[in-house]
Amino acid sequence: MRVIDNRFQDLFFDPDPAQRELARQLYTSAAGLPIVSPHGHVDPWLFVDENASFGSPAQLLIIPDHYVYRMLYSQGIPLEALGVPRLDGGPVEQDPRKIWQLFADHFYLFRGTPTGIWLTLELRQVFGCQQPLNSATAQEIYDQIEAQLSSPEFRPRRLFERFNIEVLCTTDPAWDRLEAHQAIRASGWKGNIRPTFRPDGVVNLDAPGWRANIDRLSEASGVEVSSYASFIQALEKQRAHFKALGATATDHAALTPRTEVLEAAEAEAIFQRALKGAARPEDAPRFTAHMLVEMARMSVEDGLVMQIHPGSLRNHNPLVFNGFGLDKGADIPIAVEFTRALQPLLERFGNDPRLRLILFTLDESTYARELAPLAGHYPSVFLGPPWWFHDSPNGMRRYFDQVIETAGLYNTTGFNDDTRAFPSIPARHDVWRRVSADWLAGLVIHGLISLEEAAEMMVDLAVGLARRAYRLEPQS
Amino acid sequence: MRVIDNRFQDLFFDPDPAQRELARQLYTSAAGLPIVSPHGHVDPWLFVDENASFGSPAQLLIIPDHYVYRMLYSQGIPLEALGVPRLDGGPVEQDPRKIWQLFADHFYLFRGTPTGIWLTLELRQVFGCQQPLNSATAQEIYDQIEAQLSSPEFRPRRLFERFNIEVLCTTDPAWDRLEAHQAIRASGWKGNIRPTFRPDGVVNLDAPGWRANIDRLSEASGVEVSSYASFIQALEKQRAHFKALGATATDHAALTPRTEVLEAAEAEAIFQRALKGAARPEDAPRFTAHMLVEMARMSVEDGLVMQIHPGSLRNHNPLVFNGFGLDKGADIPIAVEFTRALQPLLERFGNDPRLRLILFTLDESTYARELAPLAGHYPSVFLGPPWWFHDSPNGMRRYFDQVIETAGLYNTTGFNDDTRAFPSIPARHDVWRRVSADWLAGLVIHGLISLEEAAEMMVDLAVGLARRAYRLEPQS
Amino acid sequence: MRVIDNRFQDLFFDPDPAQRELARQLYTSAAGLPIVSPHGHVDPWLFVDENASFGSPAQLLIIPDHYVYRMLYSQGIPLEALGVPRLDGGPVEQDPRKIWQLFADHFYLFRGTPTGIWLTLELRQVFGCQQPLNSATAQEIYDQIEAQLSSPEFRPRRLFERFNIEVLCTTDPAWDRLEAHQAIRASGWKGNIRPTFRPDGVVNLDAPGWRANIDRLSEASGVEVSSYASFIQALEKQRAHFKALGATATDHAALTPRTEVLEAAEAEAIFQRALKGAARPEDAPRFTAHMLVEMARMSVEDGLVMQIHPGSLRNHNPLVFNGFGLDKGADIPIAVEFTRALQPLLERFGNDPRLRLILFTLDESTYARELAPLAGHYPSVFLGPPWWFHDSPNGMRRYFDQVIETAGLYNTTGFNDDTRAFPSIPARHDVWRRVSADWLAGLVIHGLISLEEAAEMMVDLAVGLARRAYRLEPQS
Repeated sequence: MRVIDNRFQDLFFDPDPAQRELARQLYTSAAGLPIVSPHGHVDPWLFVDENASFGSPAQLLIIPDHYVYRMLYSQGIPLEALGVPRLDGGPVEQDPRKIWQLFADHFYLFRGTPTGIWLTLELRQVFGCQQPLNSATAQEIYDQIEAQLSSPEFRPRRLFERFNIEVLCTTDPAWDRLEAHQAIRASGWKGNIRPTFRPDGVVNLDAPGWRANIDRLSEASGVEVSSYASFIQALEKQRAHFKALGATATDHAALTPRTEVLEAAEAEAIFQRALKGAARPEDAPRFTAHMLVEMARMSVEDGLVMQIHPGSLRNHNPLVFNGFGLDKGADIPIAVEFTRALQPLLERFGNDPRLRLILFTLDESTYARELAPLAGHYPSVFLGPPWWFHDSPNGMRRYFDQVIETAGLYNTTGFNDDTRAFPSIPARHDVWRRVSADWLAGLVIHGLISLEEAAEMMVDLAVGLARRAYRLEPQS
Repeated sequence: MRVIDNRFQDLFFDPDPAQRELARQLYTSAAGLPIVSPHGHVDPWLFVDENASFGSPAQLLIIPDHYVYRMLYSQGIPLEALGVPRLDGGPVEQDPRKIWQLFADHFYLFRGTPTGIWLTLELRQVFGCQQPLNSATAQEIYDQIEAQLSSPEFRPRRLFERFNIEVLCTTDPAWDRLEAHQAIRASGWKGNIRPTFRPDGVVNLDAPGWRANIDRLSEASGVEVSSYASFIQALEKQRAHFKALGATATDHAALTPRTEVLEAAEAEAIFQRALKGAARPEDAPRFTAHMLVEMARMSVEDGLVMQIHPGSLRNHNPLVFNGFGLDKGADIPIAVEFTRALQPLLERFGNDPRLRLILFTLDESTYARELAPLAGHYPSVFLGPPWWFHDSPNGMRRYFDQVIETAGLYNTTGFNDDTRAFPSIPARHDVWRRVSADWLAGLVIHGLISLEEAAEMMVDLAVGLARRAYRLEPQS
Repeated sequence: MRVIDNRFQDLFFDPDPAQRELARQLYTSAAGLPIVSPHGHVDPWLFVDENASFGSPAQLLIIPDHYVYRMLYSQGIPLEALGVPRLDGGPVEQDPRKIWQLFADHFYLFRGTPTGIWLTLELRQVFGCQQPLNSATAQEIYDQIEAQLSSPEFRPRRLFERFNIEVLCTTDPAWDRLEAHQAIRASGWKGNIRPTFRPDGVVNLDAPGWRANIDRLSEASGVEVSSYASFIQALEKQRAHFKALGATATDHAALTPRTEVLEAAEAEAIFQRALKGAARPEDAPRFTAHMLVEMARMSVEDGLVMQIHPGSLRNHNPLVFNGFGLDKGADIPIAVEFTRALQPLLERFGNDPRLRLILFTLDESTYARELAPLAGHYPSVFLGPPWWFHDSPNGMRRYFDQVIETAGLYNTTGFNDDTRAFPSIPARHDVWRRVSADWLAGLVIHGLISLEEAAEMMVDLAVGLARRAYRLEPQS
């Protein structure tokens, strides 16, 4: 037991006693700071009803989390056996205890993975389960979690407060009326939850359901979208609506970071072809490239921080996509080029201090080669934290090693948890703070910075950089 | 002497005393396990005659090993001086002692390289030579090795047994009659040596000697290959022949992992053009891409594990190729794309549990970006170990660091020695087991896994993963 | 104070006591060796007048150093406020104390960066300033530096001697008459300063000012350049002129390492089009590719070592380029391909021992994939040290980890400081020697090499490899 305790106490710290001691000190100084969560995918409706609950352990921890079931699927376990709903309503496992047992039987697959660590920390720290999860302990742990989930302390709002979340930003489609956000505000509850404007479904002409999304945008904005000009107007109105409800940022997923400026007439022609369902093959990528520049223009004007998340080839596996839909763990990264791709956007707005452009990548070869040099030169460019597959101890170490020497710490933006899994948020921030503490301890031990500098940088990594980058600094 | 002993005892282990002690424990638990060698290039004829011998030290260790002579060539030493035979039969050094001396004079070039370590371990552990190899010790060490090689204990079969090899898979062209394998079986010797089906020379229309290889395929299979349909039939017959002689896998080298499904008529048209020597520039890459899918189809049907080794631009140096032939250390890797390239194959067969597709890469930027996400999703996809230039301590560390967090350990396949150099096999597996032990010790020390988990993973890394991935589990 | 001293004494050394002790020993053995600087951008005119001075601290350390001001610019500080001169002669800050204060106010941006370390070491070791630089200490440190700069010991020639520089190579355009180099020789001063032949401005047809550069080349060489043939002749004459003044190398910057052999008639046609200002879009890249092969041919003949620095997309930011000119920190790397690109050149000259071709990269994904295999095979190919953004502790570690196992140490070329900032030269070499010592100590501690080997390799890394690679070995 003592060994186990030490294991989690010093999690991720270097074995060298001097570095470990220093890492522990730095981590301790930041462990109690509030959580700033400027980018993620938590459902805001969770917080509308103060009596909302999370359902069964399987509904909370397995069925909605593609990080979890993709690994089991990769070893031949059908998604149906894990309760993942089929689009055609076909039969899937309904018994949460059976799903949980199957998961526990295969929990060894997560050895050495961040998902394994998040789940372990979450079980320990949120639900108080100290035992390792395996076939033998599965049902006992299920009982523990189930008991906790039924208590009032495990309502979403109570966990939000217990987690000490200073601010949580959700991700919401451009056509969202933000009724959940309005309801949270109207409820009088003080949790600071803010929307983020995500227009992919209307700016990417090849997005599934694009035409219907345009109609939704018309309805939400009150602007009948029938032309490129009215499209722009509708987007601007919705941005204002998001901003009025607390948004400080937008988010853009594109297959590549290509940017390009189209003549107005050409943008109109492409948009009209798309409305008629007659888009040409090059229309969608060119229009997306153009809209990234246009969105940067809007950001300059309204001050919303712009995020770009490129490089994921979505829905790689048609069998899974047709059977289960989007976001089922079958998105596979591709190589990405930023240097030339962003030049048209940066030529227009890259030197403008009003623009804040946060770049993410799944292609780590771009860290030192392209992203750090861009962030280390352009006043507008900042680098987001290691993303998705790279949100892991090694991913963070590679990020620190490859980014900071060229970009400096102050062109980065702290941490994003980027999660749908609300109860995993503390674990994810804890991993970041621990790896950050160990990295800083290593810089001190190797003589690169002083202890005083490390102490300041620790607070910046935990909360300061994210607050500043996303314009979320508390009003004093 | 004591220092030297410690040096090799703790080879590759972290200097931190706690991690080092743990690495030593884990390594010790696996050091005596049998060797499972599911992919390599040892000549099966070595084992046909129980009195076969390896020739001189130069013939054993230098002349056939491009890992060795490429390094000397890169420093200006002619291949002729190292005894590498010229295609034109021109004069090359014949005196093995002179070749050995030249090699020893330049052995310092291998400082810090895996080839240097393999040779050092091999000299120590197989031949009992404790001294460092250099100009002064060259002839004495030559004498020692020569004396050993002349003893019965150094016959190939005796070494196979002494090395504790559980199974050794060779690599054999699709048109091979497998006479060596038949002879080994007929001899009554119990060494478990199995062929692997490698069809590159007939499926890659631009392979050197393709037309002659097709004739060999006709002869071996008894199917007159005169059409695409008879080509497929001949391949299927040969696969069955390989399987009957113990094969559990196929191997495919292609410049890229591009896959594509051709209509039957188009495949036939391309094949006919190739038979007439009238192939068009795009024919060869498209046909190879098509045949990878076709080979996956056959693997689904016959259960042979499919390996793809892409990304080496063969015979980069025409002077060396024209003078000395294939596989002379002049193959240079290129950047490779897997995500889009494999989609046509995976769309057809990627979800089929009967397919097992093991991917290798020389482009490490694909580890975390493409390969680990593919292996962490598709039931059929597994990752081969670090290959060729990356079969090295640092290459293994980068592999563990970049692959496991996303793919998990259980979508990987243990170790391949991939060698022509039979006596280097124990050294190569020893390096893998040592680096694996140190990696696991680091996971324990950093708190990611428990000691019990590490102990299980150690055995998996040493033997379990390879046995399972290649369907080589001993029949109980 | 004692802590601070230890901090710099063991800078960059591993925290493990055994490795640290060994690193310290190795470093100490090399710390006093002379500096060999075979590639850099120091202005030779500094050494012509024995009473030359460096100007104010801002003129010395900030205004000319794009490594410094790019970081401040990236955080929104205008280049004008840092005194960087505008091309249009517009107003910029003139007060060096104000510039220095602004820099000191933001010196925290350099935490963990090589620029921060170089400046810290330079302030400590060259100027004797022990305090950390910040807003409070700025003016006091300014006073100290200013006082030192006014003393005779801080004349450039005196620092050259105090720095123990064995040889310093500058970089000079192909049309340079090398008057500074002639004047240094004529002065009787013994400092060993040599030119390097850099023809980018005339071989890259799209170089800014190409036509005027051709005229300069005509004038300097005495060959009227009016045809491809006379162009080649002029280049050969200038190479001979450089060689006569001590040059041992050439340097080539190209967007890509593409090489290609043009027919003479085609080269002539392209050259004529360029002279008439009528070049076609593909002319410049093809001509550059051809000229790289032609320059290799000349190197075979005259023995000048050939360097290629590809992969930087120059002048990415038009606002900065139009306002301030070239080399203002706005050059951003791109992905680079070497394997196919260099084949035409290597096919002709790659096996010729008279050619020495040193390759650099900003795309680290090419280290293990392409560059190390090329250097580990071709007799002519060597790898330059980590370049530009990668001239940093982590950059060096990645280089050692990814290059040496395949290329071996002896196909690398030691260190280049590559700097314009003369007083930073000792700090840059010190960083290299420290990181090298720690890397070697790690190899010893992990059992890969013996201590005797490490001692030899340390001297090679500090001075031996650079001397040999650049043909700068002292005449005995």
